Amino acid sequence: MPQADIRKLSAKMRHGEIFTVECPSCAILKHVTSRWGVLVALLEGTHRFSDLRRKVGGVSEKMLAQTLQYLEKDGSINRVSHPVVVPHVGYSPTPLGVGVGKQLEALTDRIETNLPKIMKVQQKR
Amino acid sequence: MPQADIRKLSAKMRHGEIFTVECPSCAILKHVTSRWGVLVALLEGTHRFSDLRRKVGGVSEKMLAQTLQYLEKDGSINRVSHPVVVPHVGYSPTPLGVGVGKQLEALTDRIETNLPKIMKVQQKR
Repeated sequence: MPQADIRKLSAKMRHGEIFTVECPSCAILKHVTSRWGVLVALLEGTHRFSDLRRKVGGVSEKMLAQTLQYLEKDGSINRVSHPVVVPHVGYSPTPLGVGVGKQLEALTDRIETNLPKIMKVQQKR
Repeated sequence: MPQADIRKLSAKMRHGEIFTVECPSCAILKHVTSRWGVLVALLEGTHRFSDLRRKVGGVSEKMLAQTLQYLEKDGSINRVSHPVVVPHVGYSPTPLGVGVGKQLEALTDRIETNLPKIMKVQQKR
């Protein structure tokens, strides 16, 4: 196996090198693929907290705040304060967040495209 | 927005149409991005249960069985019985599973590639 391949997370996972040691990438993967993380990661542009709560249907205030905190800590989203007369905070994806969002989009859309096939398999069982 | 875009899962998620209704695609996304699901989805070729338990480091017998059951139900993996003298069962990805695995690989590798940058952001906070 070439050296470059060993360093790839997917290759490491395949070779069982993950979860036996501390894995920062796995934590980040967990954040962006979490129930609410995936929804936030797919959003484009800048949103206020209240706007996000409406868009990410069903999320509690606490869970959204926690998700935003994780994603901000990972460098996937930026939190910008606007010190205007009524101060407010806007959240927008960083270039890294945009890239991860695009990969997530490809994954979710592949699942959606195959959904009729999947449903047929499930009905057969 | 064009009609085709509305049908995409990522577009639906962006427009807050998810989780307010039953979403079969979301369930499948949850299975493949679960802690153990992602590891099984990344594997190539055919594996026996005992082989998988070794490769997916840290998984319990119960959790691996449950993960395989989900992925089989979604049509991501095939479970094939070999009725030889010592009967055994092999698990291998279906063409759908291979496709989803490739998308997951792109996502995990993007995270891994950006890890040094992410770590730098995290240290600054």
